[in-house]
Amino acid sequence: MTLPDGYVFRKLKLSDYSSYVENLKVLTTVGNITIENFTKLLNYWESLPDLYHPYVISSPAGVVVATGMLLVEHKLIHECGLVGHIEDISVSTSEQGKKLGYYMITSLTSIAKEYGCYKVILDCSPENAGFYGKCGFKQCGIEMSTRFD
Amino acid sequence: MTLPDGYVFRKLKLSDYSSYVENLKVLTTVGNITIENFTKLLNYWESLPDLYHPYVISSPAGVVVATGMLLVEHKLIHECGLVGHIEDISVSTSEQGKKLGYYMITSLTSIAKEYGCYKVILDCSPENAGFYGKCGFKQCGIEMSTRFD
Repeated sequence: MTLPDGYVFRKLKLSDYSSYVENLKVLTTVGNITIENFTKLLNYWESLPDLYHPYVISSPAGVVVATGMLLVEHKLIHECGLVGHIEDISVSTSEQGKKLGYYMITSLTSIAKEYGCYKVILDCSPENAGFYGKCGFKQCGIEMSTRFD
Repeated sequence: MTLPDGYVFRKLKLSDYSSYVENLKVLTTVGNITIENFTKLLNYWESLPDLYHPYVISSPAGVVVATGMLLVEHKLIHECGLVGHIEDISVSTSEQGKKLGYYMITSLTSIAKEYGCYKVILDCSPENAGFYGKCGFKQCGIEMSTRFD
């Protein structure tokens, strides 16, 4: 598939600050992220390009309308294999129905494959399993957590 | 709980090469890991001490009998929050019944909490949910994957 005219899949950049932060509020609690916090975090991610691969889809107006992170983990198992973790996928409520989520997931998966990952994993709620199934993913386990917040 | 006499929970070190590699074969495919590959990977992990926290439990003979990795991810959500990912837990078949797995999980979870993570997550098979439940974890989602191997 291709993106609608004027939409671009690309790396996150500093000028995305406001719309990136707003976009993630669709997903979960974001809290107060100042431009200084954002700059520091983006610099941190960019200092580890082997690990953190933060992507966005921007609209024709240049605004972030979808987000996604590919985190590449270096393991010992599978002959020092690489595993891609897909994290923090969100699509603006007003942009839903354009298959931006599908484009984001399949693009991050392709990047992970080209990077040499032997698999890509993600965690989701059972309600979203059908969507990720269409993106080529299969259920393979359960996610468990313990929280301190 | 405490470990049996002579057992030690500690960071992975270079001299653990043989028993670390052997131990992980309990878990999954490991493949051929040379001392050079192991050294390179351990150096890589140690170059990123903020991210990779590889731990072991060694026996009184100094042999690795349990492994566990804590991977700390820096996110934007939750006010630039940290999430701990527990990966690659294995316990030698001959050492089971000594609660080494429980000790490993609860220790990695404590390290993540001290480190400032707002949550720790892990993926497991449904058969292991009861064990992780005893370690303080609750099911919160499903794991999905796509593989290239």
